[in-house]
Amino acid sequence: MSGKLKTAVLGATGYSGIELARILARHPRLDQPLLLRRNAETAESTGGLPHIFGNHNANGKSGGNGNSPALPFSWSTLEHHGVELLFLATPHAVSRELVAEAVTRGLMTLTSGLTTGGLRIIDLSGAWRLKHDDHRAVYGFKDNCPQTAAELTDRAVYGLPELNSTSISSAALVANPGCYATSIILPLAPLLSAGIVDCDRGIISDSKSGVSGAGKEPTTRTHFVSVADNFSAYSLFGHRHTSEILEQLALDSRQFIFTPHLLPIPRGILSTIYVYLKREMTADEVQTCFYDFYRGKHWVRVFPASTLPEIQFSVHTNYCDLGFCLAHDGRRLIVVSCLDNLLKGAAGQAVQNMNLMYGWNEAEGLQ
Amino acid sequence: MSGKLKTAVLGATGYSGIELARILARHPRLDQPLLLRRNAETAESTGGLPHIFGNHNANGKSGGNGNSPALPFSWSTLEHHGVELLFLATPHAVSRELVAEAVTRGLMTLTSGLTTGGLRIIDLSGAWRLKHDDHRAVYGFKDNCPQTAAELTDRAVYGLPELNSTSISSAALVANPGCYATSIILPLAPLLSAGIVDCDRGIISDSKSGVSGAGKEPTTRTHFVSVADNFSAYSLFGHRHTSEILEQLALDSRQFIFTPHLLPIPRGILSTIYVYLKREMTADEVQTCFYDFYRGKHWVRVFPASTLPEIQFSVHTNYCDLGFCLAHDGRRLIVVSCLDNLLKGAAGQAVQNMNLMYGWNEAEGLQ
Amino acid sequence: MSGKLKTAVLGATGYSGIELARILARHPRLDQPLLLRRNAETAESTGGLPHIFGNHNANGKSGGNGNSPALPFSWSTLEHHGVELLFLATPHAVSRELVAEAVTRGLMTLTSGLTTGGLRIIDLSGAWRLKHDDHRAVYGFKDNCPQTAAELTDRAVYGLPELNSTSISSAALVANPGCYATSIILPLAPLLSAGIVDCDRGIISDSKSGVSGAGKEPTTRTHFVSVADNFSAYSLFGHRHTSEILEQLALDSRQFIFTPHLLPIPRGILSTIYVYLKREMTADEVQTCFYDFYRGKHWVRVFPASTLPEIQFSVHTNYCDLGFCLAHDGRRLIVVSCLDNLLKGAAGQAVQNMNLMYGWNEAEGLQ
Amino acid sequence: MSGKLKTAVLGATGYSGIELARILARHPRLDQPLLLRRNAETAESTGGLPHIFGNHNANGKSGGNGNSPALPFSWSTLEHHGVELLFLATPHAVSRELVAEAVTRGLMTLTSGLTTGGLRIIDLSGAWRLKHDDHRAVYGFKDNCPQTAAELTDRAVYGLPELNSTSISSAALVANPGCYATSIILPLAPLLSAGIVDCDRGIISDSKSGVSGAGKEPTTRTHFVSVADNFSAYSLFGHRHTSEILEQLALDSRQFIFTPHLLPIPRGILSTIYVYLKREMTADEVQTCFYDFYRGKHWVRVFPASTLPEIQFSVHTNYCDLGFCLAHDGRRLIVVSCLDNLLKGAAGQAVQNMNLMYGWNEAEGLQ
Repeated sequence: MSGKLKTAVLGATGYSGIELARILARHPRLDQPLLLRRNAETAESTGGLPHIFGNHNANGKSGGNGNSPALPFSWSTLEHHGVELLFLATPHAVSRELVAEAVTRGLMTLTSGLTTGGLRIIDLSGAWRLKHDDHRAVYGFKDNCPQTAAELTDRAVYGLPELNSTSISSAALVANPGCYATSIILPLAPLLSAGIVDCDRGIISDSKSGVSGAGKEPTTRTHFVSVADNFSAYSLFGHRHTSEILEQLALDSRQFIFTPHLLPIPRGILSTIYVYLKREMTADEVQTCFYDFYRGKHWVRVFPASTLPEIQFSVHTNYCDLGFCLAHDGRRLIVVSCLDNLLKGAAGQAVQNMNLMYGWNEAEGLQ
Repeated sequence: MSGKLKTAVLGATGYSGIELARILARHPRLDQPLLLRRNAETAESTGGLPHIFGNHNANGKSGGNGNSPALPFSWSTLEHHGVELLFLATPHAVSRELVAEAVTRGLMTLTSGLTTGGLRIIDLSGAWRLKHDDHRAVYGFKDNCPQTAAELTDRAVYGLPELNSTSISSAALVANPGCYATSIILPLAPLLSAGIVDCDRGIISDSKSGVSGAGKEPTTRTHFVSVADNFSAYSLFGHRHTSEILEQLALDSRQFIFTPHLLPIPRGILSTIYVYLKREMTADEVQTCFYDFYRGKHWVRVFPASTLPEIQFSVHTNYCDLGFCLAHDGRRLIVVSCLDNLLKGAAGQAVQNMNLMYGWNEAEGLQ
Repeated sequence: MSGKLKTAVLGATGYSGIELARILARHPRLDQPLLLRRNAETAESTGGLPHIFGNHNANGKSGGNGNSPALPFSWSTLEHHGVELLFLATPHAVSRELVAEAVTRGLMTLTSGLTTGGLRIIDLSGAWRLKHDDHRAVYGFKDNCPQTAAELTDRAVYGLPELNSTSISSAALVANPGCYATSIILPLAPLLSAGIVDCDRGIISDSKSGVSGAGKEPTTRTHFVSVADNFSAYSLFGHRHTSEILEQLALDSRQFIFTPHLLPIPRGILSTIYVYLKREMTADEVQTCFYDFYRGKHWVRVFPASTLPEIQFSVHTNYCDLGFCLAHDGRRLIVVSCLDNLLKGAAGQAVQNMNLMYGWNEAEGLQ
Repeated sequence: MSGKLKTAVLGATGYSGIELARILARHPRLDQPLLLRRNAETAESTGGLPHIFGNHNANGKSGGNGNSPALPFSWSTLEHHGVELLFLATPHAVSRELVAEAVTRGLMTLTSGLTTGGLRIIDLSGAWRLKHDDHRAVYGFKDNCPQTAAELTDRAVYGLPELNSTSISSAALVANPGCYATSIILPLAPLLSAGIVDCDRGIISDSKSGVSGAGKEPTTRTHFVSVADNFSAYSLFGHRHTSEILEQLALDSRQFIFTPHLLPIPRGILSTIYVYLKREMTADEVQTCFYDFYRGKHWVRVFPASTLPEIQFSVHTNYCDLGFCLAHDGRRLIVVSCLDNLLKGAAGQAVQNMNLMYGWNEAEGLQ
């Protein structure tokens, strides 16, 4: 008995899943994570990557199968290994189905307070992020058991630790936010919370992401020759993360424009966000607004006024960096945010959520 | 006697200058361009690049020194070679001084109509682009001969061929536009001209440029390791091209925000431009607005609605590509423009201006 | 009647095919090329790319379908359009089959001298490059009509213009060389021809290619995230181009090692070639060897001793650049060659071959 | 009193120095390292980078100035802070001078066995790597105190942990190897040690490095536009690391060729090494040779036969990865090695050396 938490990762084959498995393998509070694969995935495509997981004698962790091919997923395998926390790095529809199944099988209890004993799940997909039916419609989910799905939708906690730490700490099901959404909600939350934004004049986020955000599937769009030396906008007025942002920030769809772009770099997101203020402000006032909101928050770094973050600063870390610049008229504000889409935008944030769920330091295993 | 136009390029050492020399060397209406250098530049840094100008026997052009080191600049060298058109690819202050000198030496006559006989100049710097004193202040020019400078400022023609072809054709001094400015003025001109933009709600251009736009000087900022895998915003609310855009589009500074970013690619600009419309419109109406405005304009390609240009499409060409997407509410419009900052954004546009100045086909030498 | 040559391209969907169609569309001796597709390819994947072929009114060429979707291939379509020269940018096996079919259908006559009247073909695949059965075995061709295939194999001319211009000029079937092979044969031919290489000591070509050389098919290996920031060797002791090199240079397989690597750039090849000389030589002697061999050859640029080509110099041109460095002992020689794999390594070389086949200047349409 | 080792870094401004400071700041056996700068360096260029060293409360380390600007270097500052181990990330000539000064000032005692009490130094430059006067000549050192310098040259230990762990553990002065040299010596040592290489036939290392290996100084050569989409060879038959390799492997200069190339990536080295074997061998025998040599060596990963490392696998780690491929004739062997030039090629290796010098686990602080 190690006394350490037993975790499993289903789908450690995509970029986020691999990153997650790598972090969990070194997290001091955990046994080796159990790596699982769906039947649709071949054994070869998972686990067993010596260059990713390091030499097999290196960390002396017990349990798990960190250095071997992933096992096929089944609920009994989970139970057999005593898994307490399951990370889903699966497609949206698969996550939607699996969590509902965990509930109907009685493996998971959804209560309003702290779950006792049952399995807990952190889902990295978009399956459980949206409360409004209209918003969720863009995913086209078909729930086998609509009642369970509805209850789960209600109880799922949107896992943005800087905003929802209390509900995350007692959640049974955490919906890990989208990478773009994280890069937009974190810079806007302090301003909206302070009530200084003229929302009706329109908020615009012009966001740019590295290619790993587009997933590991080889497509014409992700071919090196298509991306290198290139840059393009996509999904204008129609990206799925828009709904997350509207819900979390309580904005109306006419108040917000989100335009994603594809950067010729492997990882990293930069969002340039345009906001009109209700009244003339000074840079100091804006600075204070950000500082006050994020005081004591380990994974958000607020830069001094007119000093802007760059993607290079936050890549390979779990930080979300924030900087801003105010026009001379004191009414037009540009906020720039940067993060690593695979860390603070996915796997790192999932681990941060786990740390909150088990009462550990938010930074544990993420340095 | 070749009967061909005699041209010279001063400063064929920067990226735009090299590109310009390369195009001129192949232009069917010209002799080999005379390559000149300022005394501050060493002979080694200019000309004599076999891999750029090709094998010496290849194009059979007479005159010029296309394949040899650049000659030191002097007015008498210009006269000796019978140069009729001078391209300045020099720093702003140098251009400001040299053009004034050409006038005071009597080499150049500024008339309202077609210049007769005198030297004509196409300047690629920012020296002569701005009419308003306030705007020009950002450059901090110190004119030796303020009266001549003022007259030149009045008579200089802003060389955006799609907007000013008539005045360009008879100009003695053409101020070649900035690369960012070109990528923003071309998409906005049709909309503003049609009077459909709600300017007071604010126009935003979130623009992204490849590194050659930052010049050839090696700096910490242009070091490969600083740029690769990175992306950053700069000069927020303070880039010099802003004034060009305001002047050419007759906008007030509070109506327009321009944010440049540095892309990890060698060349190319993409501007994502956000516009609110005065009234609800259909995509067809917007399309028609662009089509009508650019009908017969060789170097602007308007894409069908919701089909967006990418940097790769226009790089290594003289095209400015335009695409747009209209929100479902018919009021919010995003226009995306792309061009090659060294061609349509600099050298190619200069050649296009030359073609207009001498009554040739706008596309000549630019295919 | 235009009096211009009628050409067709089958397979203008891969990188080489698109580049070829682009060059042919501007070649002054040709009508618009006819763009054809195999039935396996959809109409969408071919032709109709306004950003590639330019504005439709731009070049005023008659004939062809340069700006429209490719037509399905059939022999009668070829005849109907009076196609005189067919470029095959098809997979190896398809080329092997199609050329044989052209002969059995009587469209093509293979004579030792100049073909009269019949269709001529330039094949960009590896189908007809190799004379030795053992070498060809790596492709695993299955010929429907072995006798015709054998005759074609005999009569096909290896289309390296700098070595085989005479036989190319009268060939009915030209096998366009591989990109790596071109980058290795051109630097070695002068040295081997001069008899100064100690072949038994071993010749090594350590070659590096951009990603377009790996084809347009999206695979895990060509995914941006796999290639960017990465570099790797592949096909050690086993790349298909090895046989071409051995055949053309009359080397024994134990005398030559070829190691390809994948560079994180879209296009370009650099080969670093290690040679031991039979006797001590001076740099001047080596230089003379290269100069003499390539005197008057437009598309090979020999650099001065110890000045080395870089990929950037030859990319987007049809040049093969050669440079070398001799050790102080005068016995160990390193030759560096660079070319653009899509131009001198594929489409450009094909056009150069066409120019020779029709008695035009080797540089026509390639500037 | 923390009981932790007190270290200082002089020159934490270059890429290796910054990386080193970052690793030391997190090493569990150390206090915060003292960051020092030469007077020639401004305070701004050093330390105080919040995005590099993390939030100031994050690691709770005492001592040092990890998050503040570097202090000016002086020997008394070192003594005042009780520094026990000094890392020099300084130019070659500066290191040469400073170490000699430490000895003449009596701060450092050079004994054949374990140093007792005095300062110990790990130098990342080339100042102390070479024993032979001829080899060292390429650096052109001018020693103020030739006798001390000669003694130091004798006593300095070449800090390649996999080869010299015993002498490193008791060394007062460790010369940290060059990045290229590490990538070449590690793959060749097992083969040469086994006596299976036909050295007289010639060993060739065709090596490729990312741009951080060329240093942080902005130059024409490191400008993004010069490097991106490009690839080039340099320093043929003349790179300084050649001497290190010859000395460490006891090779004659005619037996070995080393050709460095510049890769368009920020970091990482791949060396492709060509070796002729004295007798025909099997892949199993070669594999065994590598496995036996590196058994128990944490930071060298030997790949199975014909499985090759790629730069991506070892970048951001301290591993040197080795793979090989044997020709069918069993006589020609290609070994491919990969490492991160800033980690195993510089800062990581320096920390590995420190771990050995203080009897800690070789992997400590490097996971």
